[in-house]
Amino acid sequence: MITAALPSLAQTLRHRRERLAQQADFPVVLWSGQPQSRNFPANTHPFRSSSHFLYFAGVPLANAAIRLERGRLTLFVDEATPAEALWHGPSPSREELAQQMGADAAYPLADLPQWTAEAATLPAMDAATLAAQQSLLGRLVGLVAEAEGHDRQLAEAIVQVRLCHDAGAIDEIRAAAAASVRAHQAGMAATRQAATEAEVRAAMEQVIMAHGMTCAYNSIVTTHGEVLHNEHYHHRLRPDDLLLADVGAEAASGWASDITRTWPVSGQFSPTQRDLYDLVLAAHDACITEARPGVEYRDLHLLACRVLAEGLVDLGILKGQPGSLVEQDAHALFFPHGVGHLLGLDVHDMEDLGDLAGYAPGRSRSDRFGLAFLRLDRPLQAGMAVTIEPGFYQVPGILQDPARRERYQGMVNWERLSQFADVRGIRIEDDVLITAEGCEVLTSNLPSAAEAVEALVGG
Amino acid sequence: MITAALPSLAQTLRHRRERLAQQADFPVVLWSGQPQSRNFPANTHPFRSSSHFLYFAGVPLANAAIRLERGRLTLFVDEATPAEALWHGPSPSREELAQQMGADAAYPLADLPQWTAEAATLPAMDAATLAAQQSLLGRLVGLVAEAEGHDRQLAEAIVQVRLCHDAGAIDEIRAAAAASVRAHQAGMAATRQAATEAEVRAAMEQVIMAHGMTCAYNSIVTTHGEVLHNEHYHHRLRPDDLLLADVGAEAASGWASDITRTWPVSGQFSPTQRDLYDLVLAAHDACITEARPGVEYRDLHLLACRVLAEGLVDLGILKGQPGSLVEQDAHALFFPHGVGHLLGLDVHDMEDLGDLAGYAPGRSRSDRFGLAFLRLDRPLQAGMAVTIEPGFYQVPGILQDPARRERYQGMVNWERLSQFADVRGIRIEDDVLITAEGCEVLTSNLPSAAEAVEALVGG
Repeated sequence: MITAALPSLAQTLRHRRERLAQQADFPVVLWSGQPQSRNFPANTHPFRSSSHFLYFAGVPLANAAIRLERGRLTLFVDEATPAEALWHGPSPSREELAQQMGADAAYPLADLPQWTAEAATLPAMDAATLAAQQSLLGRLVGLVAEAEGHDRQLAEAIVQVRLCHDAGAIDEIRAAAAASVRAHQAGMAATRQAATEAEVRAAMEQVIMAHGMTCAYNSIVTTHGEVLHNEHYHHRLRPDDLLLADVGAEAASGWASDITRTWPVSGQFSPTQRDLYDLVLAAHDACITEARPGVEYRDLHLLACRVLAEGLVDLGILKGQPGSLVEQDAHALFFPHGVGHLLGLDVHDMEDLGDLAGYAPGRSRSDRFGLAFLRLDRPLQAGMAVTIEPGFYQVPGILQDPARRERYQGMVNWERLSQFADVRGIRIEDDVLITAEGCEVLTSNLPSAAEAVEALVGG
Repeated sequence: MITAALPSLAQTLRHRRERLAQQADFPVVLWSGQPQSRNFPANTHPFRSSSHFLYFAGVPLANAAIRLERGRLTLFVDEATPAEALWHGPSPSREELAQQMGADAAYPLADLPQWTAEAATLPAMDAATLAAQQSLLGRLVGLVAEAEGHDRQLAEAIVQVRLCHDAGAIDEIRAAAAASVRAHQAGMAATRQAATEAEVRAAMEQVIMAHGMTCAYNSIVTTHGEVLHNEHYHHRLRPDDLLLADVGAEAASGWASDITRTWPVSGQFSPTQRDLYDLVLAAHDACITEARPGVEYRDLHLLACRVLAEGLVDLGILKGQPGSLVEQDAHALFFPHGVGHLLGLDVHDMEDLGDLAGYAPGRSRSDRFGLAFLRLDRPLQAGMAVTIEPGFYQVPGILQDPARRERYQGMVNWERLSQFADVRGIRIEDDVLITAEGCEVLTSNLPSAAEAVEALVGG
């Protein structure tokens, strides 16, 4: 087969397989997964293929598996029966699918058992596929964190291959980012006419859906940004509220984006909102300025903490030396999460592998209040995509916790803090591609400066 | 406890429990289910509680169970830990939840094992909950079709209780139907400016989302209406196309609606499209005119078939006596599905129980081409909600099947049929509540007459 004649997707996939083969000299079988029932068997959640399958197979097939060995791809999938074609319409033949992905061979699923001996794998997300894996491989397939032998080596190899993105991946992330930018613009524009969070969310997700994409994760669109994993949308919008929207598109190919903006419902930040918004933005901008190959992502996180601590001291909310405050995790009272994560086929890329992707070999999560939630601790490399997403939150569970209040009693000016009660949560998040020279903000079409945000809301 | 002092939800639920107790004199435990992972553990599909749980517990809790015995409700759920509250925000206490649903007692999940002895149950949709059920009950919990003893009796009892809706249920279905009507209006209004199916779908689902609702099922919005289970939205809209949209909202309480309309992309039906549209509408209207308590739903289906056959004879597409054509299933060449189904908490209500809800005791699916896909074969009763959804389709898998072409050779005027090539699929579907006197179309705010549809599209 002449490589130059391959279509672009097949060529990209061939290159990925070859990179994997350099890391793993044993056979690998990866399953795509199958649809999961919502409330009765035929009513399923929209199907999402396994990210590992998508990375090497490129096509979001359900009920399929691939075998990878020494750069060769063998596809296992059943063709639609006449009855299925009748209800679901025409679908590509096995041969057409094999050609799309540049497979070397393709067989019905019934042939798969002959090809699984000694194969390494990763556990499927859905229980039915996991059961099928275990049955075919004749062994348990457990959590990657506890995997041994070839399964463990496979997980490590895949991390090496998927950590830095090829041109095909970057094109797809760019497309998802572009749709996400338009979704945020639509959300800002819809806010002043909207009565509820749900209406703004709907305006945003409409844009993503109109692009033929899905949401990469359950959207957060809330006036209660202090609830970090907020998936409720029922609050009415009040003119004094800030609205925090963390909404990202996923391309049909599975590649994700992840954007957060925070804007004033009225179109005008109050002075206190503006002070804290500008501070979060300063932390965000500082990280982006410093992001380049060789820089430790953990140091970007600590840079964000430092900028926030300095600003909070300047505003009179924190008391003390910023460096010392960060060492004591005082910043984490207001910024209790990490500054971001890997971005790829998963919005938290490869989080199904636990911390294997996020943490460099030999590193593990800190116990420190200000570091425990950091999802990424590796030196940056060209081709990595990461988010940069500092924030400021007044989380009652943290600020009213008696133990924390006692520990940080002398470091917080609680009276001064009470003047910022109209800020419950602010986060500013962009998607950043590390390049040879530094970095490129893939979501830079969406402004983050306070005035520009106000203009988009239409104050 | 004084019933009059109960809030309305609790009162409704108490009544439902009492109705169940009349049918089932053994203890019952029902699980709500738990979120299912999409591509990594923390990235889950939006959670949907089990419909049986929702019917008796009223509140869409995850990771909860209820025990029902002689009208008593015991709730088992864990309160959010401080760490969970920190990330997910405040949630009602166990006691508050118990009060909302009028529970007689409420305990942590850890207490559940003491309460499961001899309890009947129904299998959960998600594998993790199913495994928990089986482990706690100490036995397999399999398909309802194969269930025996109390599990089987429970399924039959729940069918009796859920088949006819109470006022609380009808209010919720009405609310879902109202949002669905607005979604279809928005879809029609968006069509002439839209370039793709995805854009129209987005305009429709936006309305549902803005109401704080979800979709009751994966939307069908397609110019290829002949693909009956079409979940692709990538086709570009062409002026000669008909667009078929089968989109329904689900209220936050879980109650569903289900509407289909078919409209011309240009805003003007062609004469051939108009002929077939009016014919499908005639079948739809005839069924609604006849729907009342005591009428066999199967007879409504056959009425729709008869009206379609008559009309197709009049149009010169079918040849012969309509009654004889229906007996030979010639109508099913163009209308290969049933005229509708039960509607409730599931869009195909209780389809998780197989045909136990859809088919009256002693009845089972026919083998006939024209009846095999009928989902409901019972006499109608006041309080039932059903859909009425006849259609006309040119499904290549049917019309080009050599065996069918031979069988129906003398009954179809293929040359005449070829003049209707601009009709790939038409369906008109409304939600109908059977009342004491006849029926009420819950979705009647959405016009179905051809001129009215054209006016909404803006031809």
